[in-house]
Amino acid sequence: MSDETAARLRVPPPASPFHVALLEPEIPQNTGSIARLCAATCSVLHLVGRLGFRIDEKAVRRAGLDYWHLVDVRTHPDLEHLAQELPRARWHLFSARGARSYLDAAFAPGDLLLFGKESVGLPDDLTTAHDGRVWGVPTSGGVRSLNLSNTVGIVLFEALRGTGALSGAALTEPT
Amino acid sequence: MSDETAARLRVPPPASPFHVALLEPEIPQNTGSIARLCAATCSVLHLVGRLGFRIDEKAVRRAGLDYWHLVDVRTHPDLEHLAQELPRARWHLFSARGARSYLDAAFAPGDLLLFGKESVGLPDDLTTAHDGRVWGVPTSGGVRSLNLSNTVGIVLFEALRGTGALSGAALTEPT
Repeated sequence: MSDETAARLRVPPPASPFHVALLEPEIPQNTGSIARLCAATCSVLHLVGRLGFRIDEKAVRRAGLDYWHLVDVRTHPDLEHLAQELPRARWHLFSARGARSYLDAAFAPGDLLLFGKESVGLPDDLTTAHDGRVWGVPTSGGVRSLNLSNTVGIVLFEALRGTGALSGAALTEPT
Repeated sequence: MSDETAARLRVPPPASPFHVALLEPEIPQNTGSIARLCAATCSVLHLVGRLGFRIDEKAVRRAGLDYWHLVDVRTHPDLEHLAQELPRARWHLFSARGARSYLDAAFAPGDLLLFGKESVGLPDDLTTAHDGRVWGVPTSGGVRSLNLSNTVGIVLFEALRGTGALSGAALTEPT
């Protein structure tokens, strides 16, 4: 799906974008593909805490992230800094240990979607502090967890669907 | 989200699984992450035509695909072979050039979800022949297409959601 010259099914940018936040992401390919999801949905990408990779211009170019400059990427030393930047955003935390389904999250425009690091997810003290706003993606087979980038894609597009942001899509020529 | 010892939000396997088919996939990491999606949803993975990589035991082990043996993977020389194996399955084709949204696809259990290769998507003669069953995922930002694996995840979980396969999720200890 890389042919960028043909018409595409497009929707207007949401009036109030979703905020995707990654806490201490470890694997650059995951963050790269999540950045692409954010660029394709006008979502803001927040990278919080210590990153497992560099995101300076040279590193981004070497990783072939051609769309990095199309994403609103914001870095934060910690979650407090993120909270101060978005004082009114409602938080949703996503965890493989979440007891309730993301389908019950009742997303609203402008919500913050927070995901933990690949190896261990979000810390327990954080999910405990936000009890009632911790969601999981149900699985059924022999593999009981999803790739971080796939989890973000599934949750983000459900949030967009649920808030009507994907309604009225129309085939549009590139400008 | 890799801690496999904790309780997880689980749903029963669907009575009639979805069939995910990739036509001539080129990038092994994408197929690997799509295989993980299939393993986590009890979906069948069909690899059709010439692959851009090897899937023998040695190659799979080297790529670190620990869950490959948990996926029902079937290979087919061509789409006719796939059609003969699933004579009753309804086909949905996904294309960045699809004129209608995947949200309008009205998925049913057992449907076949067909995705094209990363570089050029599905061939025009195929999408023309299946006109009316070609769907796209709407985007809105500077990037007008998604990664193949993310597209499959978004579509597959929408199909599961829409058919009720994610309802009644419960937190379950590993067995």
